[in-house]
Amino acid sequence: MPPPSDPSKDTTRAFLEQAIRLAVDNVAAGGGPFGAIVVRRGEVIARGANRVTAEADPTAHAEVVAIREACRVLGTFQLDGCDVYSSAEPCPMCMGALYWARPDRVFFASDRAAAAAAGFDDRFIYDELARTVDARDLDTRHVEVEGAGREFDAWASNPDRTEY
Amino acid sequence: MPPPSDPSKDTTRAFLEQAIRLAVDNVAAGGGPFGAIVVRRGEVIARGANRVTAEADPTAHAEVVAIREACRVLGTFQLDGCDVYSSAEPCPMCMGALYWARPDRVFFASDRAAAAAAGFDDRFIYDELARTVDARDLDTRHVEVEGAGREFDAWASNPDRTEY
Repeated sequence: MPPPSDPSKDTTRAFLEQAIRLAVDNVAAGGGPFGAIVVRRGEVIARGANRVTAEADPTAHAEVVAIREACRVLGTFQLDGCDVYSSAEPCPMCMGALYWARPDRVFFASDRAAAAAAGFDDRFIYDELARTVDARDLDTRHVEVEGAGREFDAWASNPDRTEY
Repeated sequence: MPPPSDPSKDTTRAFLEQAIRLAVDNVAAGGGPFGAIVVRRGEVIARGANRVTAEADPTAHAEVVAIREACRVLGTFQLDGCDVYSSAEPCPMCMGALYWARPDRVFFASDRAAAAAAGFDDRFIYDELARTVDARDLDTRHVEVEGAGREFDAWASNPDRTEY
């Protein structure tokens, strides 16, 4: 008799398979090969697929779409108590979005090497972000401006601010 | 007589001041202290301010809002020929969005150290992304799944795909 399977691992795989299925279906619908879901207490509360070209929105990656949808459903900008399952390793934009959304855990199936082999070179962006601003391929410049930072002063002195 | 000022530098500062003003006004409107604009051929085509708490959307950073608006205006998912001006150094999510949107140049006024001093620790996310997945503070797991990558096969064999 085979040993009993680890049920939590099975659940993880089942959710990842849902994300992969979303990605496959999205290709058929004219989108990119990426899917993501947000799960809370064992229930899928939001789904996302890559809509970059379909919606002319470079930020419409599967994870961003799913995070925005989950926040809309929950009425909050924080995803504590949620897990995110993505068909592929989130790119730096999506990982950034995940850090700001603060889910409990993030699971992914294909890693950045597999994505690169398929023509999606998220690795390039990871490498760029590790460089100093002036050493990057994208021309990015820090410019000293008089009055810079006065928005932070306004923030600090606003008693009604909502921290995030 | 003072030496003639460099007009391109003046223009850069003027656009950055617009972004800072957006950030200051946004604090008064109950939002976060960040603003960004997208400029094409010397003309502001899109503006964004941080709407994370106002719209319960953790991805609604000033740059993401401005990028999405610029793409909506231009009807494209690419910002070549455009420059982006941000009141502060874009966080990894926003830099990722900028890499995907591919503007010509990115300018910012306050750097990540100034943002950290104001309580916005984008630096933490930069540090996290430089780590391997299993060494991160956010529990992120690569899980081997049978069928992983079949979405990339579907993509490769779809003759109607739109590359991005």
